[in-house]
Amino acid sequence: MPALCTGQIAALFMDTPNLQPLLNPRGIVIIGASSDPTKLGYSLARNLVQEHFQGAVHFVNPRGGSLFGRQIYTHVNQAPDPLDLAILLIPAPATPDALRACGQRGIRAAILSSGGFRETGPEGALLEQACLEIAHFYGMRLLGPNCVGLIDTHQRLNATFLQPPGPQPGEIAFLSHSGAICAAIIDWSHGQGFGMSRLVSLGNELDVSATDLFAPLAADPQTSVITLYLESVQSGERFVEEARRTARGKPVVALKVGRYASGQRAAASHTGALAGQDSAFSAAFEKAGILRAQSSEEMFDMARALAWSPPLPGRSIAILTSAGGPGVTAADALEANGLHLADLSEITRQALQSALPPAASVHNPVDMLASAGPAEFAGCLKLVLDDPGVDGVLAIMPPPPASSAGGVARAMIPVIQAHHKPVVFALMGARLIGEAVEHLRAARIPEYRFPERAALAMAALAQRAEFLGRLAEPAVEYTDVNRNLAAQIAVPSSLQGMLPPEQVIELLQAYGVSCAPLSLAVTADQAVDIAQRQGLGQAGCKFVLKIASPDLVHKSDIGGVLLNLDTVEAVRTGFHQLLEKVSQRQPQARLLGAYVQPMAPAGQEVIIGMTRDPQFGPLILFGSGGVEVEGLKDLAFGLAPLSRQEAETMLQRTWAGKKLGGFRSLPAADRAAVIDALLRLAQLSIDCPALAEIEINPLRVLPAGQGVLAIDARCRLEMRKSDQAV
Amino acid sequence: MPALCTGQIAALFMDTPNLQPLLNPRGIVIIGASSDPTKLGYSLARNLVQEHFQGAVHFVNPRGGSLFGRQIYTHVNQAPDPLDLAILLIPAPATPDALRACGQRGIRAAILSSGGFRETGPEGALLEQACLEIAHFYGMRLLGPNCVGLIDTHQRLNATFLQPPGPQPGEIAFLSHSGAICAAIIDWSHGQGFGMSRLVSLGNELDVSATDLFAPLAADPQTSVITLYLESVQSGERFVEEARRTARGKPVVALKVGRYASGQRAAASHTGALAGQDSAFSAAFEKAGILRAQSSEEMFDMARALAWSPPLPGRSIAILTSAGGPGVTAADALEANGLHLADLSEITRQALQSALPPAASVHNPVDMLASAGPAEFAGCLKLVLDDPGVDGVLAIMPPPPASSAGGVARAMIPVIQAHHKPVVFALMGARLIGEAVEHLRAARIPEYRFPERAALAMAALAQRAEFLGRLAEPAVEYTDVNRNLAAQIAVPSSLQGMLPPEQVIELLQAYGVSCAPLSLAVTADQAVDIAQRQGLGQAGCKFVLKIASPDLVHKSDIGGVLLNLDTVEAVRTGFHQLLEKVSQRQPQARLLGAYVQPMAPAGQEVIIGMTRDPQFGPLILFGSGGVEVEGLKDLAFGLAPLSRQEAETMLQRTWAGKKLGGFRSLPAADRAAVIDALLRLAQLSIDCPALAEIEINPLRVLPAGQGVLAIDARCRLEMRKSDQAV
Repeated sequence: MPALCTGQIAALFMDTPNLQPLLNPRGIVIIGASSDPTKLGYSLARNLVQEHFQGAVHFVNPRGGSLFGRQIYTHVNQAPDPLDLAILLIPAPATPDALRACGQRGIRAAILSSGGFRETGPEGALLEQACLEIAHFYGMRLLGPNCVGLIDTHQRLNATFLQPPGPQPGEIAFLSHSGAICAAIIDWSHGQGFGMSRLVSLGNELDVSATDLFAPLAADPQTSVITLYLESVQSGERFVEEARRTARGKPVVALKVGRYASGQRAAASHTGALAGQDSAFSAAFEKAGILRAQSSEEMFDMARALAWSPPLPGRSIAILTSAGGPGVTAADALEANGLHLADLSEITRQALQSALPPAASVHNPVDMLASAGPAEFAGCLKLVLDDPGVDGVLAIMPPPPASSAGGVARAMIPVIQAHHKPVVFALMGARLIGEAVEHLRAARIPEYRFPERAALAMAALAQRAEFLGRLAEPAVEYTDVNRNLAAQIAVPSSLQGMLPPEQVIELLQAYGVSCAPLSLAVTADQAVDIAQRQGLGQAGCKFVLKIASPDLVHKSDIGGVLLNLDTVEAVRTGFHQLLEKVSQRQPQARLLGAYVQPMAPAGQEVIIGMTRDPQFGPLILFGSGGVEVEGLKDLAFGLAPLSRQEAETMLQRTWAGKKLGGFRSLPAADRAAVIDALLRLAQLSIDCPALAEIEINPLRVLPAGQGVLAIDARCRLEMRKSDQAV
Repeated sequence: MPALCTGQIAALFMDTPNLQPLLNPRGIVIIGASSDPTKLGYSLARNLVQEHFQGAVHFVNPRGGSLFGRQIYTHVNQAPDPLDLAILLIPAPATPDALRACGQRGIRAAILSSGGFRETGPEGALLEQACLEIAHFYGMRLLGPNCVGLIDTHQRLNATFLQPPGPQPGEIAFLSHSGAICAAIIDWSHGQGFGMSRLVSLGNELDVSATDLFAPLAADPQTSVITLYLESVQSGERFVEEARRTARGKPVVALKVGRYASGQRAAASHTGALAGQDSAFSAAFEKAGILRAQSSEEMFDMARALAWSPPLPGRSIAILTSAGGPGVTAADALEANGLHLADLSEITRQALQSALPPAASVHNPVDMLASAGPAEFAGCLKLVLDDPGVDGVLAIMPPPPASSAGGVARAMIPVIQAHHKPVVFALMGARLIGEAVEHLRAARIPEYRFPERAALAMAALAQRAEFLGRLAEPAVEYTDVNRNLAAQIAVPSSLQGMLPPEQVIELLQAYGVSCAPLSLAVTADQAVDIAQRQGLGQAGCKFVLKIASPDLVHKSDIGGVLLNLDTVEAVRTGFHQLLEKVSQRQPQARLLGAYVQPMAPAGQEVIIGMTRDPQFGPLILFGSGGVEVEGLKDLAFGLAPLSRQEAETMLQRTWAGKKLGGFRSLPAADRAAVIDALLRLAQLSIDCPALAEIEINPLRVLPAGQGVLAIDARCRLEMRKSDQAV
């Protein structure tokens, strides 16, 4: 899918006309306006009036009176047209009736600012539900409840009850599940160098969700970057889809909190146990092109750079500094963020040498020495920006001992504007660099107090470019798969069922994943017979016996696997020993016999798997397998469907993936076949919604060109809600 | 060693009287004072005079004249007594002569502020050396060169040429290798809520180093916390010793930069390759009790908490908030920093319930709701502080919708002062919480703008308490070791020599580390003979053959190891095969034959090793071994000598250490024996300075109670400089 052109974005905006009354109201009525300055109904009225919102603002309160020179109506019907949006600041129990009155009055959007709903318990939840039904009946959209409202600085619309001043107008949109964070960020943002286009406090997300707001924000000409403070996500798959569509055109940055709040899930596989909610969010954000911040400060540090700078075309950065120490700090911080120091060309180095004193360092970091003034900073910046090996520049200025920092900034700005590479600044200090800060902010050039933060912002520009590059890569879809067969196999026989191993193999083979053959033997004779038919007795032909039981998931943990059986006697004795040992250790387990499997050729071993995240769908895992997978945690996750590049990235992020290329005495393995298996597993997971978890551990990876072999695989099916409804 | 009492600290201070003229000068002379306001010699004079330094300040410049109403002398001899400190702001080449004049005049300390020395090349280095010799001759101490000078806010001494204002007086001392960072931090610190006691710009550390300043700062009554911006460390072992002595009494926080600057060392062992400079610094800091910050902001965030709050007695924290969102953020941040949410007692929960509205959450995080005012904040804070399960409190206040944040802070301060548990604040916003910020700063209670930073500061208080606890634990010293034997073995025969494997075993056994026996066979017959004497032919008795060559370090990489040999024929054939294969693959290698080793019983496998860090001495490694050790990086480091607790911590930090306790089908292994081996290896490393690297990989860990067995070990000896000199 190509990037959307402006016309298409406008069309998207048109597709959601029902948010227009909420986001672009021509007239607003406050239900619960108050002339008592200690009430939130007063604060809200004050904010709307004093910010000079250009639409109509009306007040309703059964007690009547007047406020800010305007009449307070006693009923919403008295308020004149146009009236698009009602803001309800009344006790929760009174809300349904008031909402109904708004609906009858023809109002098509409401902000339920009050608390007292779902967050207080079951009664509040019922009240919420009542509100939603009323809204559906009248075709209204609802923001909240339990929110501080919304702000559009460019329309001068401050529909919150927060203490003034509101945020400065700017380009960053902010959506938040927490009203308190809205209040804090607005207050903190003054003096931080960024303004906001829109702010929406989502509250309980009864109706309008963060997802709903992506398309309007994508179309909003005042918004360059979207920031999100997320506590949870409803309808994760739609969230990813909408976010990804939005992120094609505008950067999106999110802070997801509640990482440690939810415990690990009970799971039948390592994959399930390891794929915590946080991995799913990370994978979903990556798929959607949402950059993930680790703190509020980080989020807005990243957002400013994304709003003002082009994406970083590569990862090679030049550091330009007037002092050695901060240069070293910056080099550390770049490396820590996955960027690296550019190698400057000989031409650049010579030019720098002519422009600088002999004691200056013309290798990267370029240290111009403390004597550097406007001419040196501007001249050297031009030289490094002109170097084709430099993707971006981190410029550092501590308080200059002699010249004015403001003068330096003024000299550099035209150079930056004449180039198309990102330049971010670390202006270190406060008062002594204040003038420089102002100049840069006015020129929309991102600046930070410390090199560490500047480096992080630069990394965000690299991530942004990489996401835009990934967009071109389609998800892989194989045509040589047997969808019908898979659909026949993956039918949950009960609400939660482990698929028998033979069927797991059939399922995987239907999608082109090679498996070591496996046959069930109910008796020792059968086991010998099966093995003989597969070559038992021939030189080098060895067999494995694995206990067969629907009740035992991790067979090797309870001694349920015997290796290296190469004679009739060994297979026969092994069979008896295996059943005896397991029945002693696990007397409750139903034993069906033993699986006979020829020993696979030697190779590296990895784990690949999928667990279906309740929010985001199939989460694919790759990493170091074996029994220690949960301890080593050498793992990477991705959300299905995967592109080839996404699968490649998963390999690169783990030691298991890196060593597939060979390591010391370990020969190179069939890396391409692993990627192929990952992609096929992802496709199977998409095609078979009944698959709740599937895991191949180990996947044996043979030498390059010889493919992979699933040695042990397990799969859990689960009836989905939609199936149950049928 | 018990903690030092105040008298002892004073005595330490007395041990370094030669720093008195530098740190507490009665009279100062500026050599190179200038009446030209564009010169640094003017700025320096201005700072000394305008800050009203109480001692005498004199100026020298061959051109004479007057400055700030004082005569400029043409020679240092003209300046009257008392004269302790000279500050030289003159070109580098003129420095030796000026310094000599100062020495002759009886001045006992000098700050060489100018650059132009070692940092510019070999000529500058020679100038430096000349200065040092002059200083030694006259018994002078030197700060710098290439530094901005020093500041003592309590003596009103600003001996820098930086633009005013200097830092606010306070309790944090700051030592820095970077002068630019000094300038930046001073400027930035205004408005950050902390003041400084002393600031010392170390420059090139020609004479006075960070290490030299620990004792004076430990004794300085104005300093509560010491912060360090470090680029490198001279005499690492003395640095650790002095820092550790200081950290007994005062917290020390450091930012070490240049982490990625120096490449990995060439090394003969995994240990050497893995133990980068940064691991050595981390281990050294841990040993010294220096808390490591990751950025300048982090360092001062930590320092403020350490200056004002008691150490955190445990890791259980209560969060007290008036809003849910920031509470979740704080919970995440605490977990991310290794702290956790306290379980509040039933009594506490009931008391909170009575004090708060029904919709409030009385589980941790305690969410008092947005209506919470001074009474709720103060009352609930008292309740959670009184809970014995709570070690500290993180209090969060976004801009309050109704009440004044200042009033809330005022109400809480007496409660905090009446308890002995740390309370740190996240006051979220800027203007709306400004008054609260001021109140808390005045009461010396640490406050931050965001929960993430408050959580990090709280974690520093926990680390501080844990270090003080560790101090009680002595380093382990075994008496059943054979020092003499070890000294005889560990004699470097050449400048860089691998010790033959038989001798490595002898060395380890001399220190009580059990090793699998190893015998060299020069012929196949000998190999068979050795194996037969050790039980070849008996059931279950298997042997390993390993190629013997002084040129081959990683034997298994080149097929130099044969396993599972259990017959005479297998040993004989194996011997020939081994030598043939290796001589084909490594025709240059000198082959001595093969080592015969009985196969050890099964068990877990780990790596333990030591590499001698050029700065900090023996760096001990523990982790997941095998050939993949460098890829998996499941490793922990510690500086020898180790206490039992330190060795225990190394195990806890790695998966290899955790699984020694047993995991799934893996039985528990002899964890105690691993700790014993680590401690013995640490002691051996201390006792044998010629040991450059030693590594046991794998160390086979047998079931609990059965000990460990070194399967493969290598050791490199190196002549130390002191040995060479003999």
